[in-house]
Amino acid sequence: MAQTLDILGIGNAILDVLARADDGFLAARGLDKGAMRLVDTEEAEALYAAMGPGLESSGGSAANTCAAAAALGARVGFLGKVADDVPGQIFGHDMRSIGVAFDTPPLVGGAPTARCLILVTPDAQRTMNTYLGACVAFGEADVDAAKVAAAGVTYLEGYLFDPPAAQAAFRMAVRIAKANGRKVALTLSDAFCVGRHRAAFRELLRQGVDILFANEAEITSLYETDDHAAAVAAVRAEVPIAALTRSEKGSLVVAGDSTAQIAPVPTKVVDTTGAGDAYAAGFLAAAARGLPLGECGRWGSVCAAEAISHVGARPQADLRALVGG
Amino acid sequence: MAQTLDILGIGNAILDVLARADDGFLAARGLDKGAMRLVDTEEAEALYAAMGPGLESSGGSAANTCAAAAALGARVGFLGKVADDVPGQIFGHDMRSIGVAFDTPPLVGGAPTARCLILVTPDAQRTMNTYLGACVAFGEADVDAAKVAAAGVTYLEGYLFDPPAAQAAFRMAVRIAKANGRKVALTLSDAFCVGRHRAAFRELLRQGVDILFANEAEITSLYETDDHAAAVAAVRAEVPIAALTRSEKGSLVVAGDSTAQIAPVPTKVVDTTGAGDAYAAGFLAAAARGLPLGECGRWGSVCAAEAISHVGARPQADLRALVGG
Repeated sequence: MAQTLDILGIGNAILDVLARADDGFLAARGLDKGAMRLVDTEEAEALYAAMGPGLESSGGSAANTCAAAAALGARVGFLGKVADDVPGQIFGHDMRSIGVAFDTPPLVGGAPTARCLILVTPDAQRTMNTYLGACVAFGEADVDAAKVAAAGVTYLEGYLFDPPAAQAAFRMAVRIAKANGRKVALTLSDAFCVGRHRAAFRELLRQGVDILFANEAEITSLYETDDHAAAVAAVRAEVPIAALTRSEKGSLVVAGDSTAQIAPVPTKVVDTTGAGDAYAAGFLAAAARGLPLGECGRWGSVCAAEAISHVGARPQADLRALVGG
Repeated sequence: MAQTLDILGIGNAILDVLARADDGFLAARGLDKGAMRLVDTEEAEALYAAMGPGLESSGGSAANTCAAAAALGARVGFLGKVADDVPGQIFGHDMRSIGVAFDTPPLVGGAPTARCLILVTPDAQRTMNTYLGACVAFGEADVDAAKVAAAGVTYLEGYLFDPPAAQAAFRMAVRIAKANGRKVALTLSDAFCVGRHRAAFRELLRQGVDILFANEAEITSLYETDDHAAAVAAVRAEVPIAALTRSEKGSLVVAGDSTAQIAPVPTKVVDTTGAGDAYAAGFLAAAARGLPLGECGRWGSVCAAEAISHVGARPQADLRALVGG
């Protein structure tokens, strides 16, 4: 089958709601700064009522990556479940308007479109509270086999290990990709998510993940070690390419015997929401152009710097101009 | 009646959708840069389909002013019509979460919550396309007489001359305010809106507007002159206090024989959406504290500078710290 997509993302389809909060607000509610936790309808409503005025935008980790990769010129598709409501329409518009092929049928008559209540503290860290809504309905029936077979790389969002039917959908997508000689990429998404689903993540790596994205907390959680170097050695033995982000220390791209140190791009940090998603977008968009791994990492750093320079996860500047590509 | 509110705003209740666009996009659609035009459902859908990915937030001119004035510590209420939908819930949350009293009953089973499609060009100008939706249902029944009577100043948004039933509601609000010894403020909102409703605006001024807000295009349109100085002389004779904004030239506060020149506050201009609304918020919040007119203008300038330093009309920084109040 002809490759008509460079990247196909599979992830949660979410409306982000960002609001400023101080450390006391997090502490009073027992929220772990920088982490993502799942909330039910009741908790979501109580937290929303307590939090300040918000800025809304389409979100979702893999969806953010897809939007930014498309802005960089890659041919991109996305699979994810919204509901038949205004946030779902906004999500679909935002994907299609940037050129991302997105036509997963919306959920009708069920839960509303997922919402992530994101609290941004004065230190620019984001703490996320996700109500999964319609995302829990994403399953094997939503895996568009023709799109997976036609995509150079299928990019899987680790957060999708949480909704019940999505793990089976992931395994199905990996089987289809491999059967068609395509690559699979995975992001670990969140250290607590790795903790909840460590065995399933390790199993998926063995099934055939070609490119892994993880930050320090995630990769050390995956290999149950406090030592980043030990985790790097473990992932080097298990995955062909690992792009390991390290916040202000930049990133490390590990592939077999080779290791590339990627410098961070200096910027004023306003809100770290979406930094990892943007890094993956830059990396995958550069990889789709056949650029060397060091250059893939540089594109990742440039996109991450853009993401953290403003409130919100989706790009606001012209990414193509920023990478000079 | 005791004064329990400093400011009561009456305006359109809108979901803003902001997206980047270039001059060619505006030109191809015959859009006047910097202006607001009304669009029907069909036009709104066509424009939304053509425009880029958006950033959503609660908007509406007087509502923006109310949100910022509350952030400055003023006691604020708002009257405006949303629908019983997700954007309407977001609008209500954003008002109440900042302490604005807002309980206008939402429209059920009618048009959806109003939406303003805002195109931000690389020169930071915003061009607005408003689908009025539920706002057309705002009328005299929504004028909460007790709130008007209890508010130091009732602040009227000129854009409300567009929806059919709102002019009667405005006249009713002015009568109630005057009967209770309260003040009335008005913003002209937009030069084209002034052109559509010039006679009604002039009539409302004669009915008893105490404080008028207008930019250069609006005040010259009101008095049908090309000469700003002539418009200043005319408004000086007609309105007790006029706060006349002049973009990068700062503003002029005219009251009887006195004139205060207010310097602009230097900032990097990212998006001019909400600059005038923020100016009015600073001015009215300072006036509510009994500060002199020059200081009211300075608060206005500080808030306008904050508004234009980021994408979106609602404040993102701590306004109280910025004004030092």
